[in-house]
Amino acid sequence: MVDPRTSVIVERMKDVKKVIAVSSGKGGVGKSLVASTLALVMAQKGYKVGLFDLDFTSPSTHVILGVGDVRPIEQKGIIPPKVHGLKYMSIIYYSGDLAVPLRGADVSNALIELLAITKWGSLDCLILDMPPGIGDVTLDLVRLMKRIEFLIVTTSSQLAFETVKKLIDLLESLKIPVIGLVENMKMDNSETIQRSTEKMGLKFLAAIPYDSKVEESMGKTRELLRTTVSKKIESMLSKI
Amino acid sequence: MVDPRTSVIVERMKDVKKVIAVSSGKGGVGKSLVASTLALVMAQKGYKVGLFDLDFTSPSTHVILGVGDVRPIEQKGIIPPKVHGLKYMSIIYYSGDLAVPLRGADVSNALIELLAITKWGSLDCLILDMPPGIGDVTLDLVRLMKRIEFLIVTTSSQLAFETVKKLIDLLESLKIPVIGLVENMKMDNSETIQRSTEKMGLKFLAAIPYDSKVEESMGKTRELLRTTVSKKIESMLSKI
Repeated sequence: MVDPRTSVIVERMKDVKKVIAVSSGKGGVGKSLVASTLALVMAQKGYKVGLFDLDFTSPSTHVILGVGDVRPIEQKGIIPPKVHGLKYMSIIYYSGDLAVPLRGADVSNALIELLAITKWGSLDCLILDMPPGIGDVTLDLVRLMKRIEFLIVTTSSQLAFETVKKLIDLLESLKIPVIGLVENMKMDNSETIQRSTEKMGLKFLAAIPYDSKVEESMGKTRELLRTTVSKKIESMLSKI
Repeated sequence: MVDPRTSVIVERMKDVKKVIAVSSGKGGVGKSLVASTLALVMAQKGYKVGLFDLDFTSPSTHVILGVGDVRPIEQKGIIPPKVHGLKYMSIIYYSGDLAVPLRGADVSNALIELLAITKWGSLDCLILDMPPGIGDVTLDLVRLMKRIEFLIVTTSSQLAFETVKKLIDLLESLKIPVIGLVENMKMDNSETIQRSTEKMGLKFLAAIPYDSKVEESMGKTRELLRTTVSKKIESMLSKI
């Protein structure tokens, strides 16, 4: 049976020019930080940006951006609140702050519901903070959003990069475009990750050094915009 | 309909005295490292230990332990190979090295199949490396294994600890026993996490300092056993 919400989603997304899914092989590599900062930096530059936190395993962009006590407004659908110049939506508005243990099928349903009701309006770019790896959310999104492109985040760690290689294999086998790779929390000057990325035929977008100030800038966007993370992300904008 | 494999699982697990599920709110906090090291340290002490990597989002224990080219043996079920003195099984033996994009229902099915076919024999302790958060795997395991207890891993980061609090709320609402919490990759002497843990009525099991030698000891168990991580985990054994 065709879900009637599918055609609603196409209509809702028709004025969204670009969709970037920020993803990673494993968690804890700074994916949410990269997604939030990218959205913030683009909004500062005057782009019309949306940020949609779909990481139902551990939604965090509301903490990073200090979203505060705003809520979506119901108006023949849901209008995302404006936060620091960007339109913001998160799965937390669906699940509430008390997380519910969700099975894959429930996650799919929540995702489709959220995509069907959210009115993004006109956007230059919608940034999605994805759950790590490829599961129900990725498989549904790829089916529902034709223009989706992936931006992959890793750390320099062997474990993280191994899972990224698998993720990229999977995306390629599903014929999903990959914009490139960001190496986050870099502690040294090794070029191993950059070389391996380029060997896979992918763009190496940025090497972001580990920055201890990031932890203190959680929820404080003005401080976040002054970190090395923001500067590195700003300088990679031309490549995406 | 009752899955006939359910009763097989009960039979397979009857000589396993203790089941510890090592879990975390978000990924990248060192959950697989704690699970692997805990299993290794217990095996060194002479306990009969099994380690089962169920983190289908990013299985890593085979890299940490340098499992090498061993395979389970088929013999009216599957016998886990013996690796560094412990019995080892991983979801990678099911999915192969080329990860398949799995939906939740497929993950459930793979898990039940693995539990039904694996012959652990007699064990003092079976350690499970769980996927982060609570999803299909956790919900199935809790249903299938009556004696399961959770050991929670976090870092000192605010984002990681926020998701841990949610995880603990969920486990409590599902009436699942929590052994306690491990703080990993600690960079300073702050007691914030310890105090918050104890305020929640939970045992604070260990504070493991960040140790740059861990990355180099991937796959080399003799070096891994010399790290601070191993020493801290050894000294928490009496508490679990």
